[in-house]
Amino acid sequence: MTPAMEKLAACFASLPSIGRKSAARLAYHVLEMEEADVRTFAESLLEVKRAIRLCSVCQGYCEDEVCRYCSDEQRDKSVIMCVEDQKALEAIEGLHEYRGQYHVLHGVISPIDGIGPDKLKVKELLSRLNEEVKEVIIATNPSVEGEATAMYLGRLLKPLGVKVTRLAYGLPVGGTLEYADHTTLWKAIEGRTEV
Amino acid sequence: MTPAMEKLAACFASLPSIGRKSAARLAYHVLEMEEADVRTFAESLLEVKRAIRLCSVCQGYCEDEVCRYCSDEQRDKSVIMCVEDQKALEAIEGLHEYRGQYHVLHGVISPIDGIGPDKLKVKELLSRLNEEVKEVIIATNPSVEGEATAMYLGRLLKPLGVKVTRLAYGLPVGGTLEYADHTTLWKAIEGRTEV
Repeated sequence: MTPAMEKLAACFASLPSIGRKSAARLAYHVLEMEEADVRTFAESLLEVKRAIRLCSVCQGYCEDEVCRYCSDEQRDKSVIMCVEDQKALEAIEGLHEYRGQYHVLHGVISPIDGIGPDKLKVKELLSRLNEEVKEVIIATNPSVEGEATAMYLGRLLKPLGVKVTRLAYGLPVGGTLEYADHTTLWKAIEGRTEV
Repeated sequence: MTPAMEKLAACFASLPSIGRKSAARLAYHVLEMEEADVRTFAESLLEVKRAIRLCSVCQGYCEDEVCRYCSDEQRDKSVIMCVEDQKALEAIEGLHEYRGQYHVLHGVISPIDGIGPDKLKVKELLSRLNEEVKEVIIATNPSVEGEATAMYLGRLLKPLGVKVTRLAYGLPVGGTLEYADHTTLWKAIEGRTEV
């Protein structure tokens, strides 16, 4: 491979679940793509970093000051669903069942990785709690870190007089929320238990 | 997903063997990458289209007028190995056994796809035949189209007084050359037969 090809293949190989051989194939594919399509691809990469910022309310990704979920007046303002990341938010939204608010934590508590509550969007969550908010649903992944985060948030929020619930263990332990099937995910939301 | 994310995910999904869900994951990954790394990725994409051209001798991909194989004076000039594409060339070169010349056809004859010999780099191959060239090894894939191309080239080249050989059928029929293991691939080169 030429140096330019090696460089592109290395970029592909740095992405998750793309191995060395797949990366080389993708680089060859790019070489055979139309110039305009490659340009679109390159611009899309840069655009994502340029255009996307955090919603000032829920901290989810958006391209405006406030995301479409937070600015939707039709949605229930009495409940906030706390998720680890945007992928989990999209998975729940994909059910077309939940009509409350969201809050994106951008991670979970993980002492082994040096991630404490201060690294998460917890402060921003606290600032959203007012008399309108009746319930906070903690929808972190069913992992050790997700559980620890749920426990932490439960202890933090309950004294403030808000109901704190956790998704039911219908989810397969150790999995990630975004790959759960719709029924399991919705059952977990329905069967949520108080922390 | 926001419009910018949708657009990037669509770009990833247009690549071979990347599905809709993987594409979304990759787009999220890009969002969390360092800005400098995303810039490198975008530039690498454009650079591949800008820097790479066809070697004026073997028609392989290179970044100069003549590729490193054709400009290597240590390589045997009496034999030319004809391959379908650059991936096959790299697979053979990866053996570190073959020290002759290459010629990249950029495809195979495939009437069903409307690809005749005029769409391949056959003219360029003919122009390379001189008294120095003693043998042309046809290393197209062991597929119907690869065989048809080998037959065509055999009939075209033999009257010109050059020896024309074909890789031995040690290769698994229906497979592609780039995924063959080293031993099988080298046995196929060694056991090549006259067309």
